[in-house]
Amino acid sequence: MALGCPYGTHRVLGPLGVFPQPAKFINNDFSTLYDNEILIEVEVLNIDSASFSQINTQAEEDPAKIAQIILETVIQRGKQHNPVTGSGGMLIGKIKTIGSALQSRPLNVGDRIAILVSLSLTPLHITEIIAVHKHVDQVEIRGEAILFESGIYAKLPEDMPQKLALAVLDVAGAPAQTAKIVKPGDTVVVIGGGGKSGLLCLHEACKRVGVTGKVIGISHSEAGVARMKESGLPVIPLQGDACDALWVLHQIKGLTDGKLADLTLNMVNIPQTELASILATKDKGIVYFFSMATSFTAAALGAEGVGKDVTMLIGNGYTEGHAEIALAILRENPRLRKIYERTYA
Amino acid sequence: MALGCPYGTHRVLGPLGVFPQPAKFINNDFSTLYDNEILIEVEVLNIDSASFSQINTQAEEDPAKIAQIILETVIQRGKQHNPVTGSGGMLIGKIKTIGSALQSRPLNVGDRIAILVSLSLTPLHITEIIAVHKHVDQVEIRGEAILFESGIYAKLPEDMPQKLALAVLDVAGAPAQTAKIVKPGDTVVVIGGGGKSGLLCLHEACKRVGVTGKVIGISHSEAGVARMKESGLPVIPLQGDACDALWVLHQIKGLTDGKLADLTLNMVNIPQTELASILATKDKGIVYFFSMATSFTAAALGAEGVGKDVTMLIGNGYTEGHAEIALAILRENPRLRKIYERTYA
Repeated sequence: MALGCPYGTHRVLGPLGVFPQPAKFINNDFSTLYDNEILIEVEVLNIDSASFSQINTQAEEDPAKIAQIILETVIQRGKQHNPVTGSGGMLIGKIKTIGSALQSRPLNVGDRIAILVSLSLTPLHITEIIAVHKHVDQVEIRGEAILFESGIYAKLPEDMPQKLALAVLDVAGAPAQTAKIVKPGDTVVVIGGGGKSGLLCLHEACKRVGVTGKVIGISHSEAGVARMKESGLPVIPLQGDACDALWVLHQIKGLTDGKLADLTLNMVNIPQTELASILATKDKGIVYFFSMATSFTAAALGAEGVGKDVTMLIGNGYTEGHAEIALAILRENPRLRKIYERTYA
Repeated sequence: MALGCPYGTHRVLGPLGVFPQPAKFINNDFSTLYDNEILIEVEVLNIDSASFSQINTQAEEDPAKIAQIILETVIQRGKQHNPVTGSGGMLIGKIKTIGSALQSRPLNVGDRIAILVSLSLTPLHITEIIAVHKHVDQVEIRGEAILFESGIYAKLPEDMPQKLALAVLDVAGAPAQTAKIVKPGDTVVVIGGGGKSGLLCLHEACKRVGVTGKVIGISHSEAGVARMKESGLPVIPLQGDACDALWVLHQIKGLTDGKLADLTLNMVNIPQTELASILATKDKGIVYFFSMATSFTAAALGAEGVGKDVTMLIGNGYTEGHAEIALAILRENPRLRKIYERTYA
């Protein structure tokens, strides 16, 4: 067979000329494979948190309806690309076929890997949905998927169960980016600090700010606050609604002698928390949006509207070494690993 | 009267607890003013480019229908906050009343100012639409607006016509941010380089990269390319479609010996140019999205999908000194000023 595009544009059915992620329809017929494709036998889909939350609401929390919605999306689009949130998730599976052009990769048929590119661009074919695990946003399926040549992936580590590793790898970009931008002595606010990616970011933030810094975690739920406390990290926990920008502003002012945060990380999966993130941050500070529920215009116009000179970053799911950085956190922090095992795996 | 919230939350009618920008409805009854509000007699609305383009399409390019759509939005929402694009624009007018708490400001009744916060959060009441100037995205009106205490503004300069100054101030954030992040020797790509904000960014980029750098401007139209050439700036102009990510990638590869850009600025007012911006940029480079048509998820998942380790920034309409930096460009570059006078004022 021929070589496909490294980015997978050869499987885009429409609109033509776009990449697999923005595409509406992609080809999930795997009877013919390109020489630079890897075919995966899929075991688990880990749906993106914002997407799962939307599907769950649309399905009125009924697992059978959740399965139906996912099946319909994949039949229509050829990928699990939530048409409402625009987001995807990731998957785990065993390598079934390695294209002839990729034989030099350190991979073997049968290896269990996690695909670290989004489901929103990954050709997927579902034969059967076996089970919906609502509490972890995961769906067990029988099916196949394609990894393109440019697609990033990680072999699953030997020292932790695969579901645990998948839960960590799904949000690996956030803690890795945190590690790269937090400086000693910084004041860091993590909005959604009690959540899946928030807890990993708290760990990295605490480690990097050191004893002269300060890390504040905000969670909407009591459970989230309990997880922050249980992590053993030197975090100041706050419970409240991050949609209430004035409340957040007053709390962070109070905890920082009016100086506000050098860096605010937004990790929540609900809309309308942009302004709270901006107001919590000092002038010339950084706001890092990882939430897929972030509205670009709300952030851009929000900062201008309150006259805040902050640098605002779009969370990139990939940064060099992100899988290693994220997996290392669970090895460094056994209490966090316990929380993860209990809550997300 | 009482003091309102510095951020204007006292005028939000719904949903309660949010700020004026994300609010759906705000109070535009100006019969009672708060002590920290400034009442403006509005002369010109400068509609945000993405918003005007959407309104123009919806109105089938009919000026009367454009006026009607704007009137309806302002009647419904109490502000010119485009419900489709989420964006606003800015306005120019004369100061009518200064609240008692703001008397110490260096402002007088009768001063002509431009409001530098978005129309999407500014309480506005329109008595009459006098004229729609489609070629400059401007609407002349009779009406009033409120500037909140935190709202940024600029007195209009004496050495240029007000419409010219307004056109520059409307996009002041972009060239000012460009000035702050471009380094000597950088390779900079400006997508939408022939447009209103793109031309100012090209000027700043050329100035900052110096003789060891390289600036490439992409425009969809012949007119845009002609403007880039006419600017007299040492820009490499390219004509083509930035929605075609592969075309952009190949062009920028060709012009940079395969090294790609250190910094890509996205200034276009159409959707689906996120991936081209990401692919044009080298690993560890910066992508700066100023376009209000940017999709947060398309950018975040796009970078991850192609395994690109780039820093992605959300264009903040405000940065310290942005009005001064932007207005200075027209004084530094008379050829650019001529283009601006002819095209946008």
